[in-house]
Amino acid sequence: MPDLRHYSVIGAGALGGFYGCRLQQVGHRVSFLARSDYEHIRKQGWRIDSKDGNFVLPHVDVYRTPESLPPADAVIIGLKTTENHRLPQLLQTTMKPDGVVLVLQNGIGIEEKVAAIVGSNPVIGGCCFLCCNKIGPGHIHHLDYGTIGMGELTHDGKPAPISERLQSIANDFIRAGIHIELTDDLRLARWKKLVWNIPFNGLSVLLKAETNEIVGDPDLEQVVRNLMAEIVRAAAANGRTIEQAFVEQMIAYTKVMIPYRTSMRVDYDQGRPLEIEAIFHATLQIAESLGIDLPLVEGLYRELAFIDRKMTG
Amino acid sequence: MPDLRHYSVIGAGALGGFYGCRLQQVGHRVSFLARSDYEHIRKQGWRIDSKDGNFVLPHVDVYRTPESLPPADAVIIGLKTTENHRLPQLLQTTMKPDGVVLVLQNGIGIEEKVAAIVGSNPVIGGCCFLCCNKIGPGHIHHLDYGTIGMGELTHDGKPAPISERLQSIANDFIRAGIHIELTDDLRLARWKKLVWNIPFNGLSVLLKAETNEIVGDPDLEQVVRNLMAEIVRAAAANGRTIEQAFVEQMIAYTKVMIPYRTSMRVDYDQGRPLEIEAIFHATLQIAESLGIDLPLVEGLYRELAFIDRKMTG
Repeated sequence: MPDLRHYSVIGAGALGGFYGCRLQQVGHRVSFLARSDYEHIRKQGWRIDSKDGNFVLPHVDVYRTPESLPPADAVIIGLKTTENHRLPQLLQTTMKPDGVVLVLQNGIGIEEKVAAIVGSNPVIGGCCFLCCNKIGPGHIHHLDYGTIGMGELTHDGKPAPISERLQSIANDFIRAGIHIELTDDLRLARWKKLVWNIPFNGLSVLLKAETNEIVGDPDLEQVVRNLMAEIVRAAAANGRTIEQAFVEQMIAYTKVMIPYRTSMRVDYDQGRPLEIEAIFHATLQIAESLGIDLPLVEGLYRELAFIDRKMTG
Repeated sequence: MPDLRHYSVIGAGALGGFYGCRLQQVGHRVSFLARSDYEHIRKQGWRIDSKDGNFVLPHVDVYRTPESLPPADAVIIGLKTTENHRLPQLLQTTMKPDGVVLVLQNGIGIEEKVAAIVGSNPVIGGCCFLCCNKIGPGHIHHLDYGTIGMGELTHDGKPAPISERLQSIANDFIRAGIHIELTDDLRLARWKKLVWNIPFNGLSVLLKAETNEIVGDPDLEQVVRNLMAEIVRAAAANGRTIEQAFVEQMIAYTKVMIPYRTSMRVDYDQGRPLEIEAIFHATLQIAESLGIDLPLVEGLYRELAFIDRKMTG
């Protein structure tokens, strides 16, 4: 068995915990940075209830502070984007000199911000399609899915052939049982994710509705379509074509999907800050820089900002 | 004392009750059509708690069915617009041959529909700025305001000089202590009312917020402004100029207004159907007929339609 890549996971929530555990399960050394769950994970490890089979990892390499985290070959950022102001500090001490950063977060434009922090280290972005909740300390419930759309940030932001490095990271995940869709255009993957995330995350919080209620209502389906059309328009201004067939596929897919609470709805229900900056505001800023108005996305963003402020006081 | 006009009031809710009681208070015969409150009003009359002074009307001319209502000189429609499907039946038997209909309802385009029912009878529209709730059977709490912007429906829908009839009806209300603003352009008055009603009624239900919360939040103030701009644009396409100064006045006014629940929010809180057809859908239909898109109003309408359906089952 060749030397397996050493991963560290910043943000031991549902997403970082799930993917980190999968990698550890197939033999990778995985170092977790945890805060509230630190003591529990150190003593009792992780427990994953998954639709693909439950498992436990009793012995976990877990740390409480970024300084104590051993430098790894690849750092997975699994934080909520609402914590991204901590990234400059978190990324200082947790990587080998040629370490790769893997951004498994929602939103758009984060890889660029991470690159500005880490300088020459390669940055890979992953769009995760994962239904996974933390249901207790060190305890994760994986309901469905898990696919990651993965691409590498290029210097000019343009598409580029899949690098050996990207393929190698992807292979680690594939061996760990994660379905990976590689892309030569990370930015396009980010826009495509937003086509779903903006309407469904936004409306699920605005209207306290589940995904099946949203696509099952003729008026809300039209609201979804109108929001999606704005994202498609912004992507086009950014040089990325999203076909109408993709939009139709997203809607058809959501109609047959097991109804679930979106990640933003879960955050809302648990009183956590909403990821509106990374998902909505970053989109509006990019659109504005491209000279594009997104009035419906802007309206939804502002309504969510009000809800977020009211909730978090 | 000359013969005073005999009024009847269809819809003995907070609004119809309040204005009807004011008219009775100064000597008009007022006949009320009531449903749920019929027995109470017949036995105990009306009780009005008003910021301008409380009063009771122990003897009230009240009826349970439209057939029994004596024909009046003027019929006030104080129904919720969600009951407007009943108007063809209600208006058949409750008016003198030359009787006037006074539509004191929210929304736009209702006077035209009433005219189509009553034929040659004159139709007057009134935009009410009234904070008034029914707090028990035959018991009304008048919190604030009461002004009516009043205008007459013309055959061609265009502005016309104030008729003697309109002035005379207005004088009845003025003698009853109601502030009246006469307009020679009912359609303009309806558009102006929508400038306030669409954002504040809509957002107060969508976000469960009060008017002061809405204008006190920088993001929601911008959402309000964007919605108002769409109404101004539709009004312009309808040949009515609404100056930006009016928009600013509405926002400034709402900032200093006593915070209160909008009529749609009161309906929502009490589980009653929302007046989205008269306020939102009619606006969208008129805009569409004028070749104007109102994407933000449309989105808000569709979201409210979902909320309304979910609530009323």
